[in-house]
Amino acid sequence: MKTRAALAIEAGKPLEVTEVNLDGPRQGEVLVEIMATGICHTDEFTRSGADPEGIFPAILGHEGAGIVREVGPGVTSLKPGDHVIPLYTPECRECEYCLHPKTNLCQSIRTTQGQGLMPDGTSRFTTLDGDPIFHYMGTSTFSNFTIMPEIAAAKIREDAPFDKVCYIGCGVTTGIGAVINTAKVEIGSRAIVFGLGGIGLNVIQGLRLAGADQIVGVDLNPSKVEMATRFGMTDFVNPAEVEGDLVPYLVNLTKGGADYTFDATGNVQVMRDALESAHKGWGESIIIGVAPAGAEISTRPFQLVTGRSWRGTAFGGARGRTDVPKIVDWYMDGKIEIDPMITHKLSLDEINRGFDLMHEGKSIRAVVEY
Amino acid sequence: MKTRAALAIEAGKPLEVTEVNLDGPRQGEVLVEIMATGICHTDEFTRSGADPEGIFPAILGHEGAGIVREVGPGVTSLKPGDHVIPLYTPECRECEYCLHPKTNLCQSIRTTQGQGLMPDGTSRFTTLDGDPIFHYMGTSTFSNFTIMPEIAAAKIREDAPFDKVCYIGCGVTTGIGAVINTAKVEIGSRAIVFGLGGIGLNVIQGLRLAGADQIVGVDLNPSKVEMATRFGMTDFVNPAEVEGDLVPYLVNLTKGGADYTFDATGNVQVMRDALESAHKGWGESIIIGVAPAGAEISTRPFQLVTGRSWRGTAFGGARGRTDVPKIVDWYMDGKIEIDPMITHKLSLDEINRGFDLMHEGKSIRAVVEY
Repeated sequence: MKTRAALAIEAGKPLEVTEVNLDGPRQGEVLVEIMATGICHTDEFTRSGADPEGIFPAILGHEGAGIVREVGPGVTSLKPGDHVIPLYTPECRECEYCLHPKTNLCQSIRTTQGQGLMPDGTSRFTTLDGDPIFHYMGTSTFSNFTIMPEIAAAKIREDAPFDKVCYIGCGVTTGIGAVINTAKVEIGSRAIVFGLGGIGLNVIQGLRLAGADQIVGVDLNPSKVEMATRFGMTDFVNPAEVEGDLVPYLVNLTKGGADYTFDATGNVQVMRDALESAHKGWGESIIIGVAPAGAEISTRPFQLVTGRSWRGTAFGGARGRTDVPKIVDWYMDGKIEIDPMITHKLSLDEINRGFDLMHEGKSIRAVVEY
Repeated sequence: MKTRAALAIEAGKPLEVTEVNLDGPRQGEVLVEIMATGICHTDEFTRSGADPEGIFPAILGHEGAGIVREVGPGVTSLKPGDHVIPLYTPECRECEYCLHPKTNLCQSIRTTQGQGLMPDGTSRFTTLDGDPIFHYMGTSTFSNFTIMPEIAAAKIREDAPFDKVCYIGCGVTTGIGAVINTAKVEIGSRAIVFGLGGIGLNVIQGLRLAGADQIVGVDLNPSKVEMATRFGMTDFVNPAEVEGDLVPYLVNLTKGGADYTFDATGNVQVMRDALESAHKGWGESIIIGVAPAGAEISTRPFQLVTGRSWRGTAFGGARGRTDVPKIVDWYMDGKIEIDPMITHKLSLDEINRGFDLMHEGKSIRAVVEY
């Protein structure tokens, strides 16, 4: 079949909206009509050429929602008409990782996914001239129709609006999951969130959901205060306005340090501040942000020996097929909010504007509706 | 009263065995006759002058066992004749830290302890000329008689031999506790222990006690193999004999990385290797060793984002009054071994030889018997 898609032809170039060929689903695969997709910093990381593992030409996009239109041989858990959220972290429920209680990093299709291919080592996308186009993160949601493995699609309820729950495909789950799955924040905790972008806001609402008593937001941009407060922030700190060092200021503000701190900036110096503003004895610091290639985190080991722990999270520690439908329920039940974070709606033809809005700091999330 | 003690007069000098004055126990304090004390690297760290917080003159020693001979006003949990192990990490059971489920770092007397004083801000020791002598780690077990707060003495069974269980006052508890309290190692785990000195050996026997399947020991000194094997090591790796990088070698040896790794070296580069040889997705690395002042640990944050966690432990995460008596029971019941690690017995007059043996690498633990 043919489908409209935004093609990343080479690193650093704007996406090109065009028709491409899409083969049908093979063994264990499903064809999904994407109804909406968010535009995430990770797409931009690859588009811009900053991602050392970026492969071109490719169809980017990993934060979508849609409807199964066809299933390949052997598919048992999905059928045409099912509503799904594509999963860049799949859940096979059979590999060593899925069977381990402490991780969500299913490895069953990791090698081919990293190569921009489906699990059989081939691509379903080609140009109208027949040249191959790579998949991206196993999802390629910047195409109206796309193929993914059955294990990389979470079935969700049919009354959930695509243009909102697509955000659960990455940002919402990453932020809320970091709180709930990775940190396992307890009621009454004190927490600090560094970076009040799309991920940070979702960390904040995850903390509110978990019953945190104090939720400190740290950002250089005071325009973030209103939205962060709406999502549950109790204290705002602008490092530019703090006299003296930031860490002792935050330790004092949180009565000895926070029980949990979260880095949602990707800046390795901020990651250090996050660790060191965690409470002696029990504070845990969670790295969510993706650092530039080659950047390193550092601290004195004394920080750990005196009881702090340093951890990270990917996709919020969520097992996608199991946890994503629950988060959709939380949204539909009003336990979490998404609508105010979807600040811009675009058509596929306007997708490059979505990247511009991100760079201009004007959007929390721009969503493309097909 | 007067007591014989090994006095650290100034940094870098040998200890001087002499008589000193000891005041009786005040409110909440107990007088303990030390029957045996180990000589630990931490004593040497301070004696040598490497410890930036070292205070002189002082009576060092923190790994002892003895008998309560007198109790001060208000003491309710101990009486003369009780056998005890002094605790450099006390357990008041009342402070914010003692009441928190995730830490053992009781803070109730930390400030005065760090100043070499009892909780009322004074010292019980003076020279025969009347000049003040500082306490050390709240224990000063290099004195035949010493004073400590009631909350810094763990009552133990009376049939336990002092010359063995004194080692539970630091090394045994630190190593075994890192496995059991901090890492909470599960049956069937794979583990790597970096450094096969006194702490490393106790980590190894802790792992055996916890039911680990694979216990890899890493050390540059092959003479450590025999003892480590006796305590449960299943694989030995000498980094000097590994072709290529150590981390991938260890990851391969442990089938993808260890579930738990332990640094018992204090070397920050080894700490990094320990983290990076932990398993993707769930591996935890525990820092036990004390690094030189100012040294920093580093890694790429990707190591944490892909599921490894970096933690530390002090006194093996043990709550001394609660956990130390249990470890004494484990020793008396034959669940753990101590005897082969007590390689040298000395009189107090020979205490400086104990430091020489440590430097020469000839002792695992030298114990002074009074």
